[in-house]
Amino acid sequence: MNSLELLREFSTPLISDALDSLGINGGLEGIRPIDINSKIVGPAFTVQFAPVKENQQGNAADYLEEVPPGSVIVLENQGRTDCTVWGDILSKLSLNKKINGTVINGMGRDIAEILSIGYPLFVKGTYMKSGKGRTQMQSTQASVVIGSTEINPGDILVGDASGVISIKKEILNEVVSLCQKIDEMEKIILQECLAGMPLSKSRKKHNYNQYSIIK
Amino acid sequence: MNSLELLREFSTPLISDALDSLGINGGLEGIRPIDINSKIVGPAFTVQFAPVKENQQGNAADYLEEVPPGSVIVLENQGRTDCTVWGDILSKLSLNKKINGTVINGMGRDIAEILSIGYPLFVKGTYMKSGKGRTQMQSTQASVVIGSTEINPGDILVGDASGVISIKKEILNEVVSLCQKIDEMEKIILQECLAGMPLSKSRKKHNYNQYSIIK
Amino acid sequence: MNSLELLREFSTPLISDALDSLGINGGLEGIRPIDINSKIVGPAFTVQFAPVKENQQGNAADYLEEVPPGSVIVLENQGRTDCTVWGDILSKLSLNKKINGTVINGMGRDIAEILSIGYPLFVKGTYMKSGKGRTQMQSTQASVVIGSTEINPGDILVGDASGVISIKKEILNEVVSLCQKIDEMEKIILQECLAGMPLSKSRKKHNYNQYSIIK
Repeated sequence: MNSLELLREFSTPLISDALDSLGINGGLEGIRPIDINSKIVGPAFTVQFAPVKENQQGNAADYLEEVPPGSVIVLENQGRTDCTVWGDILSKLSLNKKINGTVINGMGRDIAEILSIGYPLFVKGTYMKSGKGRTQMQSTQASVVIGSTEINPGDILVGDASGVISIKKEILNEVVSLCQKIDEMEKIILQECLAGMPLSKSRKKHNYNQYSIIK
Repeated sequence: MNSLELLREFSTPLISDALDSLGINGGLEGIRPIDINSKIVGPAFTVQFAPVKENQQGNAADYLEEVPPGSVIVLENQGRTDCTVWGDILSKLSLNKKINGTVINGMGRDIAEILSIGYPLFVKGTYMKSGKGRTQMQSTQASVVIGSTEINPGDILVGDASGVISIKKEILNEVVSLCQKIDEMEKIILQECLAGMPLSKSRKKHNYNQYSIIK
Repeated sequence: MNSLELLREFSTPLISDALDSLGINGGLEGIRPIDINSKIVGPAFTVQFAPVKENQQGNAADYLEEVPPGSVIVLENQGRTDCTVWGDILSKLSLNKKINGTVINGMGRDIAEILSIGYPLFVKGTYMKSGKGRTQMQSTQASVVIGSTEINPGDILVGDASGVISIKKEILNEVVSLCQKIDEMEKIILQECLAGMPLSKSRKKHNYNQYSIIK
């Protein structure tokens, strides 16, 4: 299995712990799945939006043809709550193109339809108003920042019921390797504790409170 | 079918696009269903609440007998998070009276019970504290404002998983007619794109980025 | 049945009404279950967290061995959204120890795993970043304050789909007794109204708008 396939086995909290051990941030605060059972793993295709200026006609957000299969589309709309940048047509076409999912720093719409086709969507919230005339595409495949996390094209996005996290593509192999170590350690700690060892003792035994040891 | 029955076929995003083409706002920001499968369509029965002043006894909110069957009750409690204005007794009596649902700019309570009877409730959030002694009824069937949307008695409220939108009763027929046009166009665009046409090309072909053309 | 067993029959809104009749606050604003079907009742085991200071190593939160079976663990992390204080290992060990559930003034993680084992968790939201190096345990079994509600060790926490409420242990029997009276009255009012009496009339008949009467 390659790193992306291995990564699919790990939860966002486990990946976050691996990133923590490297002193790296990756969490996208406040973003959650519309379906709590959704899981996404894939390289980011980034789209930056910005408010439409008064008396301007916004640019159409025609980026879908550029997105490779397997991608996770990342839409940076500054967490705006007054309009959406994603709906059912885009979801149906993305599913058809085997795009893995969409993450929005902002609102999504057509939620009933998107749930019914099972397309994985992660959002700050839901609202029905179109982005047309309100927000416009600034760039595709440029660096975007969500909260305190910078996402570059090709960085690996992982999403589950706990939220969405981003892994810099340059450190993917290292992070996967750390995830495997942490995962093994956590399984041992859980077994020891279920067998009667106090959690504090088991954690201390494995130096599990100190990030540097894990590395 | 009359306009209300036709409207039932359309999602809140589609209706929002129709309103956008008329330059009209209708969305009620931040309000969502407690059951993501809920759908409501019906004329608004409005109730305005206001904080109880210190050392005052609030007026009881006895409006339910006035509400006609088929209505959607709209409770304007200023988005307050510290008390509720709706619970299970009101839900059971409303269901019994064939009231279509309730939309609250504020909190709802008795959520487990309301879900179990299947009464459609749309709220900003959930909390268990009663409104008694905290908020009081100011008026029924007066104009209320939620976010930037004014709702008058008899305006048509539509709610689904994407949120709640209001349509001024005077323009209902026009909005339904626009929804039908947009719906047809979206189906054609989706078909064309699934058959291989780029979304940008299909949108341009149908002038779908310019609201005025739809009209 | 003892008071705790009786309390299990009552919803948080009903309990809140009983507390209101005594002039006491108990609601924990903004906290909700990750599974809308969750229900918890049990004495609080409190844990206070505080931010880790710069250049400090935080204390490990090793409190689980101290928690008696049947408890509800209350974690006061100041509503912080940037890190979690609870995950799947703690949930699995708590389930194994027959702890009743966990309430966090803050975020939880490992949500998919916790849902799959059915452990009752009530949170302000979800996020994947660990509390290690960000927040640290200050005390166990001390008084904590969430919103405007003070919770002391042994106070009874009740949580359901409407939220979480706390009952001071000294007044538990009185509250249960009030809940029984309110519950009976609400059932009568509901019956009367379903049989045709206006809600306003039924409420007036039972003096249901005035807290003092209930006592």
